[in-house]
Amino acid sequence: MTNGSLSERTPTRNLMLFSGRAHPTLAQEVAQLLEAELVPTTAYDFANGEIYVRFDKSVRGCDAFVLQSHSAPINEAIMEQLIMIDALKRASAKRITVVLPFYGYARQDKKHLGREPISARLMADLFLSAGADRLMTVDLHTAQIQGFFDGPVDHLLAMPILTRHVKKKYGDKQLAVVSPDAGRIKVAESWANSLGGAPLAFIHKTRDISRPNESKANRVVGEVAGRTCILVDDLIDTGGTIVQAAEALKADGAEDVIIAATHAVFSGPAVDRLKNCCAREVIVTNTLPLTEEMQFDKLTVLSIAPLLAQAISAVFEDGSVTSLFKE
Amino acid sequence: MTNGSLSERTPTRNLMLFSGRAHPTLAQEVAQLLEAELVPTTAYDFANGEIYVRFDKSVRGCDAFVLQSHSAPINEAIMEQLIMIDALKRASAKRITVVLPFYGYARQDKKHLGREPISARLMADLFLSAGADRLMTVDLHTAQIQGFFDGPVDHLLAMPILTRHVKKKYGDKQLAVVSPDAGRIKVAESWANSLGGAPLAFIHKTRDISRPNESKANRVVGEVAGRTCILVDDLIDTGGTIVQAAEALKADGAEDVIIAATHAVFSGPAVDRLKNCCAREVIVTNTLPLTEEMQFDKLTVLSIAPLLAQAISAVFEDGSVTSLFKE
Amino acid sequence: MTNGSLSERTPTRNLMLFSGRAHPTLAQEVAQLLEAELVPTTAYDFANGEIYVRFDKSVRGCDAFVLQSHSAPINEAIMEQLIMIDALKRASAKRITVVLPFYGYARQDKKHLGREPISARLMADLFLSAGADRLMTVDLHTAQIQGFFDGPVDHLLAMPILTRHVKKKYGDKQLAVVSPDAGRIKVAESWANSLGGAPLAFIHKTRDISRPNESKANRVVGEVAGRTCILVDDLIDTGGTIVQAAEALKADGAEDVIIAATHAVFSGPAVDRLKNCCAREVIVTNTLPLTEEMQFDKLTVLSIAPLLAQAISAVFEDGSVTSLFKE
Amino acid sequence: MTNGSLSERTPTRNLMLFSGRAHPTLAQEVAQLLEAELVPTTAYDFANGEIYVRFDKSVRGCDAFVLQSHSAPINEAIMEQLIMIDALKRASAKRITVVLPFYGYARQDKKHLGREPISARLMADLFLSAGADRLMTVDLHTAQIQGFFDGPVDHLLAMPILTRHVKKKYGDKQLAVVSPDAGRIKVAESWANSLGGAPLAFIHKTRDISRPNESKANRVVGEVAGRTCILVDDLIDTGGTIVQAAEALKADGAEDVIIAATHAVFSGPAVDRLKNCCAREVIVTNTLPLTEEMQFDKLTVLSIAPLLAQAISAVFEDGSVTSLFKE
Amino acid sequence: MTNGSLSERTPTRNLMLFSGRAHPTLAQEVAQLLEAELVPTTAYDFANGEIYVRFDKSVRGCDAFVLQSHSAPINEAIMEQLIMIDALKRASAKRITVVLPFYGYARQDKKHLGREPISARLMADLFLSAGADRLMTVDLHTAQIQGFFDGPVDHLLAMPILTRHVKKKYGDKQLAVVSPDAGRIKVAESWANSLGGAPLAFIHKTRDISRPNESKANRVVGEVAGRTCILVDDLIDTGGTIVQAAEALKADGAEDVIIAATHAVFSGPAVDRLKNCCAREVIVTNTLPLTEEMQFDKLTVLSIAPLLAQAISAVFEDGSVTSLFKE
Amino acid sequence: MTNGSLSERTPTRNLMLFSGRAHPTLAQEVAQLLEAELVPTTAYDFANGEIYVRFDKSVRGCDAFVLQSHSAPINEAIMEQLIMIDALKRASAKRITVVLPFYGYARQDKKHLGREPISARLMADLFLSAGADRLMTVDLHTAQIQGFFDGPVDHLLAMPILTRHVKKKYGDKQLAVVSPDAGRIKVAESWANSLGGAPLAFIHKTRDISRPNESKANRVVGEVAGRTCILVDDLIDTGGTIVQAAEALKADGAEDVIIAATHAVFSGPAVDRLKNCCAREVIVTNTLPLTEEMQFDKLTVLSIAPLLAQAISAVFEDGSVTSLFKE
Repeated sequence: MTNGSLSERTPTRNLMLFSGRAHPTLAQEVAQLLEAELVPTTAYDFANGEIYVRFDKSVRGCDAFVLQSHSAPINEAIMEQLIMIDALKRASAKRITVVLPFYGYARQDKKHLGREPISARLMADLFLSAGADRLMTVDLHTAQIQGFFDGPVDHLLAMPILTRHVKKKYGDKQLAVVSPDAGRIKVAESWANSLGGAPLAFIHKTRDISRPNESKANRVVGEVAGRTCILVDDLIDTGGTIVQAAEALKADGAEDVIIAATHAVFSGPAVDRLKNCCAREVIVTNTLPLTEEMQFDKLTVLSIAPLLAQAISAVFEDGSVTSLFKE
Repeated sequence: MTNGSLSERTPTRNLMLFSGRAHPTLAQEVAQLLEAELVPTTAYDFANGEIYVRFDKSVRGCDAFVLQSHSAPINEAIMEQLIMIDALKRASAKRITVVLPFYGYARQDKKHLGREPISARLMADLFLSAGADRLMTVDLHTAQIQGFFDGPVDHLLAMPILTRHVKKKYGDKQLAVVSPDAGRIKVAESWANSLGGAPLAFIHKTRDISRPNESKANRVVGEVAGRTCILVDDLIDTGGTIVQAAEALKADGAEDVIIAATHAVFSGPAVDRLKNCCAREVIVTNTLPLTEEMQFDKLTVLSIAPLLAQAISAVFEDGSVTSLFKE
Repeated sequence: MTNGSLSERTPTRNLMLFSGRAHPTLAQEVAQLLEAELVPTTAYDFANGEIYVRFDKSVRGCDAFVLQSHSAPINEAIMEQLIMIDALKRASAKRITVVLPFYGYARQDKKHLGREPISARLMADLFLSAGADRLMTVDLHTAQIQGFFDGPVDHLLAMPILTRHVKKKYGDKQLAVVSPDAGRIKVAESWANSLGGAPLAFIHKTRDISRPNESKANRVVGEVAGRTCILVDDLIDTGGTIVQAAEALKADGAEDVIIAATHAVFSGPAVDRLKNCCAREVIVTNTLPLTEEMQFDKLTVLSIAPLLAQAISAVFEDGSVTSLFKE
Repeated sequence: MTNGSLSERTPTRNLMLFSGRAHPTLAQEVAQLLEAELVPTTAYDFANGEIYVRFDKSVRGCDAFVLQSHSAPINEAIMEQLIMIDALKRASAKRITVVLPFYGYARQDKKHLGREPISARLMADLFLSAGADRLMTVDLHTAQIQGFFDGPVDHLLAMPILTRHVKKKYGDKQLAVVSPDAGRIKVAESWANSLGGAPLAFIHKTRDISRPNESKANRVVGEVAGRTCILVDDLIDTGGTIVQAAEALKADGAEDVIIAATHAVFSGPAVDRLKNCCAREVIVTNTLPLTEEMQFDKLTVLSIAPLLAQAISAVFEDGSVTSLFKE
Repeated sequence: MTNGSLSERTPTRNLMLFSGRAHPTLAQEVAQLLEAELVPTTAYDFANGEIYVRFDKSVRGCDAFVLQSHSAPINEAIMEQLIMIDALKRASAKRITVVLPFYGYARQDKKHLGREPISARLMADLFLSAGADRLMTVDLHTAQIQGFFDGPVDHLLAMPILTRHVKKKYGDKQLAVVSPDAGRIKVAESWANSLGGAPLAFIHKTRDISRPNESKANRVVGEVAGRTCILVDDLIDTGGTIVQAAEALKADGAEDVIIAATHAVFSGPAVDRLKNCCAREVIVTNTLPLTEEMQFDKLTVLSIAPLLAQAISAVFEDGSVTSLFKE
Repeated sequence: MTNGSLSERTPTRNLMLFSGRAHPTLAQEVAQLLEAELVPTTAYDFANGEIYVRFDKSVRGCDAFVLQSHSAPINEAIMEQLIMIDALKRASAKRITVVLPFYGYARQDKKHLGREPISARLMADLFLSAGADRLMTVDLHTAQIQGFFDGPVDHLLAMPILTRHVKKKYGDKQLAVVSPDAGRIKVAESWANSLGGAPLAFIHKTRDISRPNESKANRVVGEVAGRTCILVDDLIDTGGTIVQAAEALKADGAEDVIIAATHAVFSGPAVDRLKNCCAREVIVTNTLPLTEEMQFDKLTVLSIAPLLAQAISAVFEDGSVTSLFKE
C-alpha cells in the first residue's frame, strides 16, 4: 500500500481560500488575483435558522484563509465564520487565518459605561476559541483591537488606496483634512501627512458657553474656508454624523466636501442621506457588499481585493506584510 | 469613609436573573416563581445589526443566571447571550450560569460526514470562552452534549411534565410508545417505563428489499394496531418526520396518535402540518416562544418554568438538582 | 561545524510509530503495512507499579503515532500511553497522534445519574493535557465522543470490514439485522443499509404490562422468524446481553444467529457464554488483543490493521481519511 | 482538635492590602483611609538583582489587593508585583486584585510599525499568568487596554479630582481646553464638558504646505487667544511635548497656560522644563512617587488615595464602582 | 416554592471528605479526627477493569477533600482519584483539594536521560485537567514538585512525627544522621538539626580509584564509628539501597542502625530484606497501607492522620498551614 | 501578481538568531559558529525605563532563537526578552525558542517557607505566556526546573567543558571532588565519576554538639588531606560560601583547591573574595557577561558558545541534542 519513502518526505504546502456567504463577489475577486479557486463549500440555513457548513473537498494539512465580511445580518455572518473555523479545525487544516475585511463589533472596543461588554474583545476570543490561528483585517476602528487577539494580526490599511484616488482627482485643489469627531483626528492627521501636509480640522459637538446665544451643535475647529475638505472616517454607518459634518463645513465656507471612508456599512437612512447631502463625492471601498440599491451617482467604490490578495500571498509565503503596503 | 469592620465581613450572596430578548415571557414566569426580579437591562440592535447590552444596576459579586432560549433568529439569540455573559464577566459577577431552555445547534453533535463542524461543541466552547461557569439546559438532543462543556451542566428532563399530562388524560387507554426514528428509541424506552411498561415501536425508513413490490418509505417496527400511540421526540422542527410517522401508525392500525415533544421549534410548514395531521393532540412545553399564529386547537403547551425555577433555586442554594426532578 | 545552508533549508518530515505494551502484535502488523519500524522503546514497571518509558532513538521533529489499545489492565494501558505522550512532547515531537483501536471508558459518555463522572470526556482531556494533538480511533461507543476532544479526531469505521465478510458468507440468505438493545438501533440501521436493505429488529427488555401473565424479559420488536439474524453491537464485554438476545431471537423463530461486533473485550464469562450459545458464528476484529484462551471454534477475527495503516498514512500525507473508508 | 461545627460554617471574608516597594507612601495613605493595615512583607534584592518576597502573616483565603505603581526602575516594579502575585496564589489567597495607579508600558498599546510588540497586552497577560483575578487602574493611556485583560478591570478616572481643583481656582476665567496632540483630543473633550462647555483646541505638529515659508512645527488648531488654556494630558514623561505646546499657546495669544495631567512620570529633563516653562501651574496626582527633587514651586500634587480606597472598598463589598466616581 | 429571602443569603460552607479505595483505614482515621463522615461513595471495577464511581449524596457547593494514597496497583489508584475529581467537578463541588499522602511517580521528577517523561509533572497536569484546585501531600521526593502544580500546594512534613519518636527512644545515645545516597543529604541535614546537631554522613557508591585494590561498592563518607546511626530516607521501595547502607554502616563500626522513612512502599523483597537486616528498628508512617504480611517485629508505624486532619482543617478554615506544623 | 504555483509550494525553513542587550558578545560568538547573522534589532529604553524593541527585518515564518542571559540588572534582561518574544509572536515567527545561558530566579525553585513565591516556575510561566514554544538552558540550579515549563526543554550541561580543562591541567594529581554544601553533592558525584572515580567530600555547616568545645562552622565531611580538591558548584554569586569552603579544605589539609562553576554571577564582593582566597584557580564559563573589572589573574573563562551553537543547530535540524553532549 505504501512504499519505503512514506516515513520520510518533503511536504508541500497548500493555500486554500474559503468564503462564507456574506460577500461572495469580494472572495471571488481575491481568488482570481491569487490564481486560486474558492474551495467549493456547502452552506445553508436549516428551517430554524441554524447554519450548516461542509467543505466539498479534503482540507487536511492546508493553509486555510477564511474570508467573511461582517455585513448585515451581522450575527449570521459571524456565526457562519465561527462554524467554518470549527469545521476546518476538526478536518485538520494546518493553519487557519481569519480574513475580516470588516471586523464586526469593533466600535464596542471599551466600556463607555459600567456593565457594558467589550464586544470587540469577545469576538477575538470567540475566533480563538473556535480555532483561529491568526487574523487579517482592514482599518480597525481603533488599532488597539490588534491586541485583543492572542496571536498575530495583520492590520491592513486602505488609506493608500483612498488617498491615491484623492490625489489624482483633487491634487490641484487647496485641500484640508477634517475629522467628523474629536476621537478620530489622529487618523485625519495621517491623511494630512499622506496628502503632503494639508491643514487639519475637526468637528466639535457642543453647546459653546463662550457664545451663549448660539445653539450651534457642530462647531468646526480649524480653518476650512475656501478649501476642498476631505472628510475622513473609518466607516459610514447611518451617515448622520458625517452628513452633519459636511453641512457644518459648508456653513463655515468650505468650497467643496469630499467624504472618504473605508467601510460602507450604509445602514438605514445612510444612502438617502449621502445621496442628498452637500458633498461632491463619497469614496468607499468594497470591504462590505453593496447591493445595487445602495449605489448612487456620486459614490465611488474602490476595490480592496488587491490588498487582501497581496497580504494573503505574503502570509502564505512568509513574506513581509509590513513592506507590502507602504506606498 | 470606612469603618473597622471593613476588613472582616460575612458576605451575602445575591441571586440575579437576566433575560435576553428571545423569550421574555418565560423569563418573567421564572422570575415570579423565584420571587425575584428580572434585572432591568438595556438591549437593542444598532442599525447594522450589532447588538448592544447594558445592565441597569450593579451586578458586582452576584450569582448570575442568564436565560435565553435559542429561538429564531437563532444566531441573534446566541450572540446576545454571549455578549451578556461578557458584560457580566467584566462587571465582576461572581458566578455565571447560562440557562438554555433550548440549546441551539444541538443536532450537530457529531460529524456525520467528513469536514463538518461539531457545532454543538462549538457552542459549549463559545459560552466557556465568553465567561460561563456552568450550563443549565432541558432535554438535550443527545445526553453526551453534557460532556462538551468543561464544567458542571444541569441537564433537566421535561419528561415528567409531559408524562404526567399523558397519564392523566390517556391513562385508561391501551398505550404504545413510538419513536419516529431508530436513533431516538432509547428515549421512547424511558417513556415506556414511565408509562408503566407500555410496548415500544419505531419507524424504520427504508426501501425494504424483502418486500420488493412495496415502496413503503416508513415501516413500523413493533405492534401498534388498536393502540393509542404516544409518538415521542425531543423536538419538532418542520414537523415532516413526525407527521409522516403519525400517518404510518394510523395506516398500521393505531387507534389514536398523540404527539409529544419538549421543544416546539415549529419552523416553516410545521404548524400547518401538525394542525392538519391525523394526530389527536400535540403536547409540547414552552422552552421556545410560541407566537399566537403558532398555536392551534389540538396543541397543548405545558410550562417549563417551574422546572427551571426549582433548578435555579437548587443551584443557588447548593441543593441537589438530581433529587428535585425525580417523580 | 555548520555550513551556510543551515539557516535556510527544506525540512523532511518523519513518520514514527510507537507502541505501548498492551497489544504489540497489532502494532507490529500496522508497522509492516506502513513499511515502517516500530520505534524501539524501553518500557517496564517499577516494583511498586510505576511505569517507566524511554524511547531508544531521537524523536525530535517527528510526526508521532502512539498506538495503544485499552485492554485489561486498562488503567495501566491508559497511563502508559499518557506517559509516552509526555515523553514525546518533552523530546520535541512535532505532532502527536494518539491511536486508540479501542477507546477505554467510552461507555461512560454521559451522566446517567447525578454525581457520576463523564469518564469518556475525562480521557479526552487527559490525552490533551499530556500533549496529544489529535486522536484516531475505531467505532466509538457513541459518535458524540469525537466532540469531547478539542482537536481533530479520525473516527474510523470497522463496519465495511465486517459486512464484507457477512456478505461473502451469508449473502444468499434471508437476512435481518438486529440490535441487542434499543439504544444502538441506529448502528443496526446502517448495517441494514449496507446489507442492501435488510429488515430491522431490536430487543426490548421490559416487564410488559399489556401481557400480564408473561414475565418475558427480552421481547423482540420486529419480525425475525425464518431469517438469518445478524446481531450487531460495537463491543462484547461479558457477553450477557448479546447471548440473551441471541436466545430470544431463536425463540422467536430465527433460522440462524450471527453475532458481529468490532471490539472483543471478552471479560469474565464472555468466552464461555459465546462458545456455548446458539449463535452459529461470532465475528470480531482485533482492536483488542485475544489470547489463545480467548479463541474458540466459531470465532472469526478480522484484522483492523489495514484500516489503521491506511488512516495513519493518509494523516501523514495530509490525504483524505473520509474518502479512504467508503466502500 | 476540631468540633462538630467544622463541617458547616459561615465564612468571614478578609480584605488584605499589600504594597510593593515602588510607592510605599501612597499604599500607606490608602491603608489609612481603609482603616486597614498594610500586610507586613519581607522584600529585598539579592546581590545579583533577583527580588525576594515573603508575607509575614497568613494570607490563606484573603481578598488580596496588591498595590504597586510602575515607577522607575519600572521593570523592577513590575517583576516585584508579579512575584507577589505568585506568592499569593501559592499561599491560597482567595482573590487577587492587582492595583496599578500607573500601568506601565500602556503607551505600547498597538503596533505602530511591523515587528513591534504590544507590550501593554503583554503586561495584562503576565499578570493573568501570575495569578491575577482582576485589575484596578487609573486613567489608562487608551481605554481599550481594559480589553487586554481577560477578566474584570476597574478603570478609575482622576479627572474629577483634577477638574475640581481647576474649577475652584480658575472658575472665573475664560477657559479653553487644549490637547497637546491630535490623538488625545477626546480626553480634552470630556474635560471641556466637565468645565461647562469650554472651547476646544489642539496642537498639530506638521510642516504646513499651505504656508510654504513658515517652518512652524506646532500649529494651534482652534481659538485660544485671550483665554486661560488648560493643557491636559494623561501623563507627563520628559515634558517636551507639553512644554512646547504651552509655548505655542502663548505664542497664539493665550492669556495663561495651566498644565494638568494624571501621571507625573517626570523622566530626565521633565522637572527643569516644567519649572522654567511659561505655564502658571502644573497640576498632577500622586499615582507615581515624587521625590523632593521632583517638586517645584508651581507644582500642585493632588492625592489619588481616596479614589483608590473607595474603589477597593467597593470591590470588596461588591458595591458599584461605576456609581462611586461620578461627580 | 421559594421565599423573598432567596435572592440574598449568607452561605454556609461545607467540608466533605472523600476516599478512594486505596487506603480506607487512613481516610477513616482522618474523618474521625475531623469529626466528619466519609461521604458514602459507590465505587467498583467493571469486568474489563474500567472504574465506576458515584457519590451517594449531594456534593453541590461543598469544599471537597479527596484522599487517595498512590499504593499498588498504583495506576488504578491514580485513575480512580482522577475519576472522582471529574465527578466532583461535574456535580458542582465548590473547591476540590486533592490529598495525596503519597504522591505517585514523584521519583520521575526530571529527565535523567533524553526522551524520558517527567511523570511527576504529568501527574500534576492530569489532576489540574480533571478539575483539582489544590494539592496537599506529604514529604515529596523533591520539594520542587510543588512548582509542578499550577495552584496552591500544601507540602506537609512528617519529620517532626519521626524525630519525636527517635528523640524519645534514642535521645541518650551518641547519634549520627546518615543519608543512604549523595542526593538526599540535605534531608539528613535537617534531621541532624532537628536532633540537636548530630554529625552527618552519607553513603557514596563508587569504585574508589584512590584505593585500587578494594572493590568497595558502598563507601561511608563521614564518621560513624561507635554511634547510633539514624539512616533516613523519604521512602523505602524494594529496600535494597537502604539495607546495603545499613550493612556498610555496621562494617564501618556503627554501634546501631535505625532506619527511618516516611513512605513504606515496601515492594517485592522489601519486607524480607528489612526483617533480616542488621538494623535494630525500622520506623515508618502509614501514608501507604500496610497489610498484615507487611508487618514485622522491629517495624514501628506512626500515624500520619493527625497531620492530615490538622492541615485539612486549616485549609477549610483558611488558617495557616505553615504555622501548624512547626514543633 | 502571483502565479499558479502559489497554492502549492515546498516551504523553506529559516533559522534566525536574536539577541537581547544583556550579553551581546556571547550572541555574536554563537552566530559566528552557526554561520548566521544576528537579526538587526532596534532596542532602547525610554526615559522612564520602559523598553522598546523592534526587529529590523521580516521574521514571518522563521524558526526564532532568542538569546538573553539573565545578568544584572536581571529584571531588565528578563523583561526585554519577554518583549522580544511578544514581538516575534505578533510578527508570525513559526517557532520561538528561548535560549537562557543563565536562567534567572532558578534558586527560588521551591517554597523554603510558607508564603514565598516559586519564582523559577513563575519565569517559566511568563515565557510561555509571552509566546515561547521551547526553552534551552545550561546547568539549571536543580534539574526539576525542566518540569516547570509546559513544553520541551533542552537542558545543556557545561560539565564536559569544565572537566576537560581540569583533566588536562590536573589529571596527574591526587584529586578529590568537594561540594560546598550538602544540597549539591549529587552534582559533585557526577564530577567524581567524570574524573575517573575521585573520592567525594562536602562541607557541613553546623554547630557540632558532639564536639561541644568547638564552634567550627564549616566541617569537612570526607577525606581531603593531601589532595587537590575540585570544589564544584553551579554558580558563584557573592562567593562567600565557596571561599569559606576553600579555606575549610585548606585547614583540613588539602594540598590545593580549584574552584569550578558554570555561572559566574560575581555579585558584590565576589571578585575580591575570589582574587584573595586560597584557591589556585577559578574556572567558569561565559554564560554570563564578565566585564574587565570582573577578571583577575587566576580566573579561567571557558566559552559556552560551541555548546549553544551545536544545540541550536540540532534543534533546527531536528537532530538529537542528547547525543551531542555526551563526551
